[in-house]
Amino acid sequence: MKNFVYSIPTKVYFGKGQLDNLGAELSSYGKNVLLTYGGGSIKKNGVYDKIMEQIRKYDLNVFELSGIDPNPRITSVKEGARICKENNVDVVLAAGGGSTIDCSKFICANAADDVEDPWDYFIGKAKVTKALPLVSILTLSATGSEMDCGGVLTNIETREKLGSGNPILRPKASFLDPTITYSVSKYQTACGTADIFSHICEVYFNLGSDFYMLRRFMEGMFKTLVKYGPIAVEEPENYEARANLMWTSSWAINDFIKCGDGIPWSCHPIEHELSAFYDITHGLGLAILTPRWMEYCLNEKTVDTYVEFGTNVFDIDPYLDKFEIAKKAIARTYDFLFNQLKLTDTLTKVGIKEEDFEKMAENACRNGGAIDGFVRLEKDDVVNILKMCK
Amino acid sequence: MKNFVYSIPTKVYFGKGQLDNLGAELSSYGKNVLLTYGGGSIKKNGVYDKIMEQIRKYDLNVFELSGIDPNPRITSVKEGARICKENNVDVVLAAGGGSTIDCSKFICANAADDVEDPWDYFIGKAKVTKALPLVSILTLSATGSEMDCGGVLTNIETREKLGSGNPILRPKASFLDPTITYSVSKYQTACGTADIFSHICEVYFNLGSDFYMLRRFMEGMFKTLVKYGPIAVEEPENYEARANLMWTSSWAINDFIKCGDGIPWSCHPIEHELSAFYDITHGLGLAILTPRWMEYCLNEKTVDTYVEFGTNVFDIDPYLDKFEIAKKAIARTYDFLFNQLKLTDTLTKVGIKEEDFEKMAENACRNGGAIDGFVRLEKDDVVNILKMCK
Repeated sequence: MKNFVYSIPTKVYFGKGQLDNLGAELSSYGKNVLLTYGGGSIKKNGVYDKIMEQIRKYDLNVFELSGIDPNPRITSVKEGARICKENNVDVVLAAGGGSTIDCSKFICANAADDVEDPWDYFIGKAKVTKALPLVSILTLSATGSEMDCGGVLTNIETREKLGSGNPILRPKASFLDPTITYSVSKYQTACGTADIFSHICEVYFNLGSDFYMLRRFMEGMFKTLVKYGPIAVEEPENYEARANLMWTSSWAINDFIKCGDGIPWSCHPIEHELSAFYDITHGLGLAILTPRWMEYCLNEKTVDTYVEFGTNVFDIDPYLDKFEIAKKAIARTYDFLFNQLKLTDTLTKVGIKEEDFEKMAENACRNGGAIDGFVRLEKDDVVNILKMCK
Repeated sequence: MKNFVYSIPTKVYFGKGQLDNLGAELSSYGKNVLLTYGGGSIKKNGVYDKIMEQIRKYDLNVFELSGIDPNPRITSVKEGARICKENNVDVVLAAGGGSTIDCSKFICANAADDVEDPWDYFIGKAKVTKALPLVSILTLSATGSEMDCGGVLTNIETREKLGSGNPILRPKASFLDPTITYSVSKYQTACGTADIFSHICEVYFNLGSDFYMLRRFMEGMFKTLVKYGPIAVEEPENYEARANLMWTSSWAINDFIKCGDGIPWSCHPIEHELSAFYDITHGLGLAILTPRWMEYCLNEKTVDTYVEFGTNVFDIDPYLDKFEIAKKAIARTYDFLFNQLKLTDTLTKVGIKEEDFEKMAENACRNGGAIDGFVRLEKDDVVNILKMCK
């Protein structure tokens, strides 16, 4: 087990009705609040009204930035930071899914410093050094942004989608009320579940087997998704399902399982190219990629990890041949994503064209010429995986 | 799933050599440090020298309180608080197992307030309202005090052993270097592992089945103990075993799995009477009690929890009759504690006499006349369980 530093100070208010504690939490940071959100679903599901009730009750001043995109744009960061600076905002309140929270993290950073172009955080030209406090209200279980310290932003001009992060960007507090996700569509519920599944895969397939306790935890998370993802898709108001998915989304990526740095991811960098080029839903891109990536990486050296995955997550008979177990595990993953969660299963069906595979693969490998994750993938490997997804 | 608030801000430096970061961490709180420890094992295993090296490197002033007992006394709290007040101590550094860290939490509290008798925190006559910052160096994987916010102290005069806690007592930072536990004896390693096992039992058998993700995590922790406890007993310098046990000790009790308050414990209040009366090792008392408590509580209403435990932790065939699974699970627990960990298996063998059972049972039930845990235990039930342990 390699060394690591664990530090996840986000306070989580979990459960139905926890927004009653929002005003008290916000007012501990000051009087001026920037509320950020996306397309306005919070106005339909009652969250906006609840926020305003708490704002009034605690006599806070609120400014708003709405319209944050599902693949959030760097232009929103600029706009949010401008509002904060002009109005002496004390705390940013992000109400949304990962896109709104991701974007708000960099609003918090850019509101506190003098970096002129926040895209510089993503291309290595500027560092995050300070940040306003961030509080989040989660409306979609998926990215885990509510408890992690990173974010992914899109630059439409340069057709780039890049990630960046810093521990000071981790939300100070997050409100996780599973009933808020009751109105999330079947499709978005499925995509969110696939996103969480992928976060765990990225670590599970690449973390040393000596992290025994954590590997068992990860299998527990996989099992949770396999059990409750399909239930939430079928019964959107099933509290137990929504609650388990929500808590799993946070723990899949809050840095607990990955134990510090140095676990390079594989499917995420490829998917970022899909959604940078085609603006598709992140979780759907991951769902299409993940089982093909699993198939592509299976070999004599890697098979034992698949055996662990298959026997512990899907209860596949451990006495079978190990490649048979691995193939059954991959088949169960296909079944989970495309039959149980009912997600679209090919790139062609979502309109992604083979003519872009080369360029997307090249971009995915831009750092060091390859994706050096579970199995090292060079550009041609990425093209091959994309072809398997056709 | 009931509502809860999650907040575990302790920073953990995990791994070999992490004490290199001690001086920097301590100096972030100030110049004056109270170092607390027990019988002096830290002078034999190199920890004391390492601390002093860091103290000198960062030009800190150190005061010492040594001799904290395995069942720590309230008199040590008084003494520690006095040293802090007289020397304007900025931070307390506890180097030890649960007893030293538990005791130091209340030193931190009493050093910051005007409570004359710190026993008042334990008998409801005073509240913890503020505390000096606490940093810990863990030398024994057992109580989880390195990441939780409670402690258990003993009052020799009144023959009482009581617990108390407050979120502000949680260590600000803890150093978990598995190599420090290489010198822990086979016996103490076994007792510590039994202690962790019991912490998980107390929650697992009493938390709603709808906390699905967390129940799978708890099973992962049980499996970790079952796998690595015996290895650490046999091979004290097995890093993988020591590291997995250490990280499990923290997560078994840091409030993550129990999800807020309201999970009353069963075996711990009984064991506290054993060690209050006889000063035996806490983990050993728990080991003797736990499988008998399991047997005593098994009935038609509770059997399903045993089935979940047996099939998921010990891989018992799920197609057997459910009481057969439950009995096999209990048998496996006996085997783990007494054959694998080689712990003493009866109260008689550790010198505890039947004549004290009534009084100990009465004390264990002092709050509300019963232990209202997984299965409600009145005084006679506790006596019966103690008789099963003879």
